[in-house]
Amino acid sequence: MFVKKAWYVAATVSEVGREPLARTVCGEPVVFFRTEDGTPRALVDRCIHRRLPLSKGKLEGDRLVCGYHGFTYDADGRCVAVPGQDRVPRRAAVRAYPVVEKFGWIWVWMGDPGNADAALLPAMPGLDEDGWMPFRDRLHVKAHYQLLVDNLIDLSHETYVHTSSIGNDAVAETPIESRREGNEVFVDRVMRDVPPPPFFAAAAGNDANIDRYQLVHFQPPCYVHVEVRAVPPGENDPNAGVRFFVLDCLTPETEATTNYFWAVSRNFRLADGEFGEWWHRIVCGIFEEDRAILEAQQASIETDTSGLRTVDVGIDGGTILARQVVDGLLAAENGAVP
Amino acid sequence: MFVKKAWYVAATVSEVGREPLARTVCGEPVVFFRTEDGTPRALVDRCIHRRLPLSKGKLEGDRLVCGYHGFTYDADGRCVAVPGQDRVPRRAAVRAYPVVEKFGWIWVWMGDPGNADAALLPAMPGLDEDGWMPFRDRLHVKAHYQLLVDNLIDLSHETYVHTSSIGNDAVAETPIESRREGNEVFVDRVMRDVPPPPFFAAAAGNDANIDRYQLVHFQPPCYVHVEVRAVPPGENDPNAGVRFFVLDCLTPETEATTNYFWAVSRNFRLADGEFGEWWHRIVCGIFEEDRAILEAQQASIETDTSGLRTVDVGIDGGTILARQVVDGLLAAENGAVP
Amino acid sequence: MFVKKAWYVAATVSEVGREPLARTVCGEPVVFFRTEDGTPRALVDRCIHRRLPLSKGKLEGDRLVCGYHGFTYDADGRCVAVPGQDRVPRRAAVRAYPVVEKFGWIWVWMGDPGNADAALLPAMPGLDEDGWMPFRDRLHVKAHYQLLVDNLIDLSHETYVHTSSIGNDAVAETPIESRREGNEVFVDRVMRDVPPPPFFAAAAGNDANIDRYQLVHFQPPCYVHVEVRAVPPGENDPNAGVRFFVLDCLTPETEATTNYFWAVSRNFRLADGEFGEWWHRIVCGIFEEDRAILEAQQASIETDTSGLRTVDVGIDGGTILARQVVDGLLAAENGAVP
Repeated sequence: MFVKKAWYVAATVSEVGREPLARTVCGEPVVFFRTEDGTPRALVDRCIHRRLPLSKGKLEGDRLVCGYHGFTYDADGRCVAVPGQDRVPRRAAVRAYPVVEKFGWIWVWMGDPGNADAALLPAMPGLDEDGWMPFRDRLHVKAHYQLLVDNLIDLSHETYVHTSSIGNDAVAETPIESRREGNEVFVDRVMRDVPPPPFFAAAAGNDANIDRYQLVHFQPPCYVHVEVRAVPPGENDPNAGVRFFVLDCLTPETEATTNYFWAVSRNFRLADGEFGEWWHRIVCGIFEEDRAILEAQQASIETDTSGLRTVDVGIDGGTILARQVVDGLLAAENGAVP
Repeated sequence: MFVKKAWYVAATVSEVGREPLARTVCGEPVVFFRTEDGTPRALVDRCIHRRLPLSKGKLEGDRLVCGYHGFTYDADGRCVAVPGQDRVPRRAAVRAYPVVEKFGWIWVWMGDPGNADAALLPAMPGLDEDGWMPFRDRLHVKAHYQLLVDNLIDLSHETYVHTSSIGNDAVAETPIESRREGNEVFVDRVMRDVPPPPFFAAAAGNDANIDRYQLVHFQPPCYVHVEVRAVPPGENDPNAGVRFFVLDCLTPETEATTNYFWAVSRNFRLADGEFGEWWHRIVCGIFEEDRAILEAQQASIETDTSGLRTVDVGIDGGTILARQVVDGLLAAENGAVP
Repeated sequence: MFVKKAWYVAATVSEVGREPLARTVCGEPVVFFRTEDGTPRALVDRCIHRRLPLSKGKLEGDRLVCGYHGFTYDADGRCVAVPGQDRVPRRAAVRAYPVVEKFGWIWVWMGDPGNADAALLPAMPGLDEDGWMPFRDRLHVKAHYQLLVDNLIDLSHETYVHTSSIGNDAVAETPIESRREGNEVFVDRVMRDVPPPPFFAAAAGNDANIDRYQLVHFQPPCYVHVEVRAVPPGENDPNAGVRFFVLDCLTPETEATTNYFWAVSRNFRLADGEFGEWWHRIVCGIFEEDRAILEAQQASIETDTSGLRTVDVGIDGGTILARQVVDGLLAAENGAVP
């Protein structure tokens, strides 16, 4: 069960063009394409006639033609032509999903189209801003999206999962501060005068102690961004060292899989191409380390018949708040008393 | 659920010999073999002792010996020897299925053996007839057999699926005439004075307009043949141009898979070997195009939880009649009031 | 459903060391490792925090540290450290399984730890004995462990499955004697003055007739050993020819898969290296022949919806007794009246 009244990242802007793109979002098959003027559109990816995915068809102008018998849909999903006859059955249509293009991604609204409002898009600092250089990728992860949310809200795992790059003892040893504001959750971890893990030493060019900030911001249902700062101890200027945002969009595909769209955006050493390549390689390696853990965790959960409850500790404060937010939204959407 | 009182194509004649052949028909495992005089036989492919498939065993004369403990069956399925003792348990036997060899195929009767009658075999024009040259193949398709029946009864898909060979606008634009006669269904599409699609132009050696006939004949539960004619406009002689039969035997394997036995038989350019090779290659390519669509359709149906009804239009007239025939047979076999 | 009050072979001694080893036993995920003094230990392979398999973590001294957030367990399964705080939740622990190391294998007790007693290990003749040379291997078989037990208790299958090595007509033709003593089952097959199958002729270096003994001993829930003797006809000394033990430990992994730990131990031609290599190769080939049959049998059983009962004959006397023993143990463990 997924929150439906929400915008989800469905694709990067370059994935959607004049070739129909099939993507499953929140368990629903959706086909994405652009009309001739470049506008992205989204329809249910299933012909009303014999249920072939419409993504197997092709565009003729702004119309999508089913690849089996030629049932033809306009960009709003209305069926406008069927083979062998002039009359089109009344009300023949597939659902159209509201779509917006923003922050380098194609977003789709999975709830009642009447409620779609671009103002409800989550905040994404460090994207579409001067002086910041993002790069982005998509990772397919065989795990429920909430496991990915948990992973990002509680970064103490860096000490154990990302030992060779961004993890060291300081992370796991430093308690977090978690708070809920409305339906958003904030988790701060500030490590004062600590040794830099290898990634930060390399990025800064030296291994002097740092004040390290991890400022996590959860926006429901599946957005986590982390502002990372590593500055000289006592320095108040957040830009006086290494600073970057990790922007995570954890789009549910099925109950057991997630399309993980991420961007990492930095504001330093922007002109250093060699550094940029190193940075990309290390960051991608970190996400792969997470994927291995998340998929092993999902498999363990799926086969766990022990009935034993899991144990929560202090580091779980933020993840528990985030799950409460999502549970509340689900209850509200489904008419239950939260 | 499948119609049991029917002959099904289980194999080509060359597939069945002195090595036992395992094949699942209508969800039942069956082993096929020939006795020493060449007669094809079929038994349940499961030893009564410990359920090893008998197809893992070997023939000794006309007897099939289980490959695990040597339980031995005669060609009627009676157990005639067990290891370590002289006495064979009374009534020890596996079910034998009636089998006939006809039209280049091995047919098996899946219902009560007492009702098996070779006179109930479907008609197969263009096979075993002088002046006709068939070639045949088997395609394993991950789709329910009725999706394959639908595909063949309504050929308007040629316009969209087989664009490079047998499809053009004339097919989709020309309405069909459908009628049921007893338990058989006939669908005619006659396209007068239309441009030939590439396959017909190449077969005829010119791209002059044609009268194109598609005469579809459905025999339950899973037989569709299509008589195809392409003659000069106004010509009444059906042999005055390109003429061939597509004979389709859509044997259910499981609820989600089908063994598609097909033959294509033509009566023109029989001595032209180079043409024959081209013809084979194009025809096989067309079946592969269908397979891709059918498997995508099956996957879409299996994951469709939307509950929405599909929409029928005029081109579905024949497929709806064919499904009514099959539903009636199933109801009659299962004692329901149809 | 598996018998829990039992020792199961989980690994060979060399598989368990300072790298955690994941293995599923009777459907339960277990992690095996050795403490610094070499003692093998076993814990539930699932962290109490977020259920990552602990086998993804690493050892620090005698403690196992989870690879996700660093929850740390001592060798008894008690959680002794969590990240970001000093206090460890009370009663935080994973189950520890009793383990013993014996006969070249690591054994785990799957029942109430209070009942674990090394005296309950099955007898394993020919292992840890002077004058005997074992070799061993593990085979993963996609079949329920009781199918493997059946396979070994009734060796008449050798005639059909192992024709090129240890099977000939004498095996299938010679009746067995089966008896139950307490919860153990014995099955004897003595073939007097029979031709040797190829393996025995090669092992003895001649093809003179032999008295061949198969002395099968079943110990519940999953241990079968076979003492094999091939001596000159009428010879009473069991060591006057070819003699070896086949020791089979059929550890359930899931309801459909088994980790088959086996050893074959002989007391002849111990110094003949070339013979030893031939012996290994032939024995491994025989087990592979069994695996092919067992996996085909399992697949047939899983898809059998016929409802037909299987037929038992004389050769099944031992397997029926063994299943009665296991059924009795299961009934006793689960509180049913057996």
